[in-house]
Amino acid sequence: MPKVEVCLSPHLFPLFNPQMKTVVVIDILRATSTITSALANGARGIIPVETADECLAYQGSGYVLAAERKGKKVEGFDHGNSPLEYPVEVIKDKTLVLTTTNGTKAFRAAHDAEMVYAGSFLSITALSKILTAEKRDVVLFCAGWKGRVSLEDTLFAGGLIKLLTASDLFSYNGDSARIAYGFYTLFEDDLEAAVRQSSHFERLAGLDILEDVAYCFRQDEFDFVPCYNNGLITKRKSQ
Amino acid sequence: MPKVEVCLSPHLFPLFNPQMKTVVVIDILRATSTITSALANGARGIIPVETADECLAYQGSGYVLAAERKGKKVEGFDHGNSPLEYPVEVIKDKTLVLTTTNGTKAFRAAHDAEMVYAGSFLSITALSKILTAEKRDVVLFCAGWKGRVSLEDTLFAGGLIKLLTASDLFSYNGDSARIAYGFYTLFEDDLEAAVRQSSHFERLAGLDILEDVAYCFRQDEFDFVPCYNNGLITKRKSQ
Repeated sequence: MPKVEVCLSPHLFPLFNPQMKTVVVIDILRATSTITSALANGARGIIPVETADECLAYQGSGYVLAAERKGKKVEGFDHGNSPLEYPVEVIKDKTLVLTTTNGTKAFRAAHDAEMVYAGSFLSITALSKILTAEKRDVVLFCAGWKGRVSLEDTLFAGGLIKLLTASDLFSYNGDSARIAYGFYTLFEDDLEAAVRQSSHFERLAGLDILEDVAYCFRQDEFDFVPCYNNGLITKRKSQ
Repeated sequence: MPKVEVCLSPHLFPLFNPQMKTVVVIDILRATSTITSALANGARGIIPVETADECLAYQGSGYVLAAERKGKKVEGFDHGNSPLEYPVEVIKDKTLVLTTTNGTKAFRAAHDAEMVYAGSFLSITALSKILTAEKRDVVLFCAGWKGRVSLEDTLFAGGLIKLLTASDLFSYNGDSARIAYGFYTLFEDDLEAAVRQSSHFERLAGLDILEDVAYCFRQDEFDFVPCYNNGLITKRKSQ
């Protein structure tokens, strides 16, 4: 039976062995939610990059450049890390080049994995279906905040574990998975209530982007999952 | 109001700033429980060391040398990391020199802190009283297992947070504290049931030391707390 384990912080990722496994990158507020939203609205793909300079190197037609640090758009960029700033008229048929504080780095860290997906509540059920069909061991890689554990990423990991283990087709591996799942069960009926207590919520509330938070906790808006391959994130449909 | 935060793994400890704070080292299975038990039975003190060689350097009268790796006593040593192998007749008026896989390293990592205590269920209430009286910010430092997050250390952190925040004299700081507390509330009526699911329980069960586990989950056997100062751990009484 394939196993699901949880990495609660990028600083712990070196303890995991992603070879032959699927890695799910999780940055609920907001990178992986933004990536999902941009693809839903017609983006050709997303290139996650580590620095603002790397992002600027893509200047030219066909690319939308976006950079976020500390929750805010970086000066000199038209776009940041909000899932609401990529409607069809902005992103259709364009490639989004995105750098964020935590999430976009995680994709590169996971490059040794057999498959890499982006996890968000926006397509959590589609993701669980793909993982179940693929029957591969899975590492849920929480991007956190500057190395620290994030409540919202941990909640998502717990929710996905609930879906994966419900049908007895996956088993837990390790204590972090048990903790994430247990914590999720406490709040599954009101995820936003849990997130209102989180450190990142306090950060975002100060930036007046609570609409983003509400959007990031909508469940199953889409039936595809963002898939990272050779530096580019594109749509992968669930069966 | 002083704050309590939780470091879920030694690999994350560099993200915390222990200066001017109290650090509570937590290695429930079994180092901090063993340290508490040895002091209760009359040990003069415990010297936590990092390596077996460092431990051997103390050979001589007045010292009891103990070394554990991967849950087992290291060959060539009379003692390991079981809280039950230090009865009065073994340890009274002796100094225990102890090296373990995870816990003993954490004391040295915490040397910048204003105060360092060892946390165990055996004196959790005494510890909460001391911390409450001292009114200092606290970092709960879970020793984990080779860098990975441990269920039993996280449970203890959550239980201590419950005691500290009950009287509104402490507030949470950070998402790890919220997660540890939430997870604890799920299992507070049967901590051993939670631990029976843990990775370290599987390891210890294979070593036939389940009696140790039962001992490590006894609550409030003692009214003192082990306190680390200048390389030596001694008793500190609660008021």
